[in-house]
Amino acid sequence: MTIEIDYRFPPGIDAAKQAKIIAIGQTAGTWDARFAHREKSLRSHLAEVVKLETDNQGYSIATIRFPEINVENDIPSLLTAIFGKYSMAGAGKVISVRLPQNYGTRPKFGISGVREQLSVESRPLVMAIFKPALGLSAEDHGEIFAQVARAGLDIIKDDEILGDLEVAPTRQRLAACRRVIEEVKDKTGRTVLYAVNVTGKADRLIEKARLLVKEGANALLLNVLTYGFSVLEALATDPEINVPIFAHPAFAGAMCAAGDTGLSYSVVLGTLMAYAGADAVLYPAHYGSLPFDPGEEAKIRDELRSRNVFPVPSAGIHPGIVPQALTDYGTDVILNAGTGIMDHPDSPASGVKAFFAAWERVKNKQSFELESLPEGALKQAIAKWGKK
Amino acid sequence: MTIEIDYRFPPGIDAAKQAKIIAIGQTAGTWDARFAHREKSLRSHLAEVVKLETDNQGYSIATIRFPEINVENDIPSLLTAIFGKYSMAGAGKVISVRLPQNYGTRPKFGISGVREQLSVESRPLVMAIFKPALGLSAEDHGEIFAQVARAGLDIIKDDEILGDLEVAPTRQRLAACRRVIEEVKDKTGRTVLYAVNVTGKADRLIEKARLLVKEGANALLLNVLTYGFSVLEALATDPEINVPIFAHPAFAGAMCAAGDTGLSYSVVLGTLMAYAGADAVLYPAHYGSLPFDPGEEAKIRDELRSRNVFPVPSAGIHPGIVPQALTDYGTDVILNAGTGIMDHPDSPASGVKAFFAAWERVKNKQSFELESLPEGALKQAIAKWGKK
Repeated sequence: MTIEIDYRFPPGIDAAKQAKIIAIGQTAGTWDARFAHREKSLRSHLAEVVKLETDNQGYSIATIRFPEINVENDIPSLLTAIFGKYSMAGAGKVISVRLPQNYGTRPKFGISGVREQLSVESRPLVMAIFKPALGLSAEDHGEIFAQVARAGLDIIKDDEILGDLEVAPTRQRLAACRRVIEEVKDKTGRTVLYAVNVTGKADRLIEKARLLVKEGANALLLNVLTYGFSVLEALATDPEINVPIFAHPAFAGAMCAAGDTGLSYSVVLGTLMAYAGADAVLYPAHYGSLPFDPGEEAKIRDELRSRNVFPVPSAGIHPGIVPQALTDYGTDVILNAGTGIMDHPDSPASGVKAFFAAWERVKNKQSFELESLPEGALKQAIAKWGKK
Repeated sequence: MTIEIDYRFPPGIDAAKQAKIIAIGQTAGTWDARFAHREKSLRSHLAEVVKLETDNQGYSIATIRFPEINVENDIPSLLTAIFGKYSMAGAGKVISVRLPQNYGTRPKFGISGVREQLSVESRPLVMAIFKPALGLSAEDHGEIFAQVARAGLDIIKDDEILGDLEVAPTRQRLAACRRVIEEVKDKTGRTVLYAVNVTGKADRLIEKARLLVKEGANALLLNVLTYGFSVLEALATDPEINVPIFAHPAFAGAMCAAGDTGLSYSVVLGTLMAYAGADAVLYPAHYGSLPFDPGEEAKIRDELRSRNVFPVPSAGIHPGIVPQALTDYGTDVILNAGTGIMDHPDSPASGVKAFFAAWERVKNKQSFELESLPEGALKQAIAKWGKK
């Protein structure tokens, strides 16, 4: 298989001309008689326009096939090759990237591996986020974690903006949360994951990740798009990083939100994350307040699952969303709630319980109408946030 | 000094509301009585809307001040903090980033350091790019380099899409080019820089950069935006990497080309590069075929120079551009030509000579009219590419 990229051009752009510019300008370029002795080699690096279609709105999609020998089996060299200089050439958006199955990096854990870690075979997983995002101490984190972990939570993650800050240094947060992980393990046999946010300059970030794992971290969180795909790939292939990596979509809008430039969300948060070694990928769900397209969301889900990567729809997730989310996702999904757990009217622990109660009701095909719900955590959640 | 960010919103967006969402949602968030004991700490992490102006076209600019304690003195944590989740919230573009002078990473060399390496005090520097971009052998690179280096070139760089590929592995390219560097040094005493493209997964990229430097590399090239700012920062602060780092803008359009989302080119290629430790930064000049705004180009130049970083306007640079480029830039500039040197009608060596002849004529305030030019490399170049 080869590398195939779909570029979309808006009306008014000469798509045939642009496609040729990409196929030549993003590869070997042109050459003259001086390089006749390299003709065969030069030709072997040229890309090829294999399809060009224009719809009735005037949008054109050009499919360009790039030789695999142009890239290094990773995402950064791919992005440089397919959209490096050309990204600055005007209107034109990368809407699909099709890679050979053996391209890139496979997750070490993925859906099956995370399920194995948690000993949870088939139900959806429930994930929380520490809130407030900045300003709590490491001990505060430990206390919050204890409440939700004891209530049955599967996974918690740092807020993505919480780095290695003086108010709650990363290793201290881990130490506080590790005590909770051990307590729950001792008392119930259950594993709870805490995805620690790893930050810093690339070399120190990687060292810190190794250190955190040595000190008992059982999952990591990485802002892939602000730190770089090359950092994710380094962590994902590092033998010492034997824990799942949760990829956060922070900054994705900077490269995906525009209609006619950049790349589609499904390419960046679906395809590229899945080929860069992420075990689970967070991305905006269309249930919430972010203006997210359900079609792109579905593509992300499918791209991730095709590589055994856990989809983690986020934003706007609360217990009342569970029936709709399970209709859209089935059970191979991590339901990731920030305020939807932490701001439960009773307590964060009740927030967790409300999710599990919602799951039970979905399994039993029971109604989510407020009056049909028994008193308790789920009813309080539905009264506050409604249902979908 | 604090961190101040200008966000621009198009007409129809409630900018006051969005500014508040950013100031709260991108920092501590909201909290309730449970966190009363942390009130002071939580408040200290909140950002503040310090200015909001709407122009007569309906565009609003909100200035938001972020506490320095929210970030880690680097670019990735800054981007996550100011535009992580919010980048996905709809229309809104980061158009200016103002950082404390002591923020981030300073270049090890910059304008003064590169001039010192080359023993060139004040004239503009001339830089070439290997062409064709893909398909030549390491020996071909050495031969091309020999021609332009002997003709007086200051710097050459790999094409950004040329990674560590089988056709011309990075260490072999370096070996072939190092012989040329040594030959020129021996014969003329001049230093010629070769910016070798460093690629790979972050950990291996950093190791490879160290190895290349050990093996005689005297400059590096990095595709900062596809590999990650954290990688640039790692290289720029690594004591073993005692050579200048040239930052390439590949992929910048993905995050900068849209009118109402992403970040301005001057933020990404000017401010962020300058605070991430680049010694010289390439970016599109408005002279060429890329649709680049002269105002943004001027801002990039000024942002870079304010941190002693060499501006490297690229694309569309040929000898006929030199008078205009020097009017726009003065002499603290690296004139970077790909085809403008390699496709000179006579030879790449004549391409280099044409640039130096152009510089002499600018110094002597002589005309660039074709008929006024003496026979030779410059006249051939002007006959082919014209003048500006």
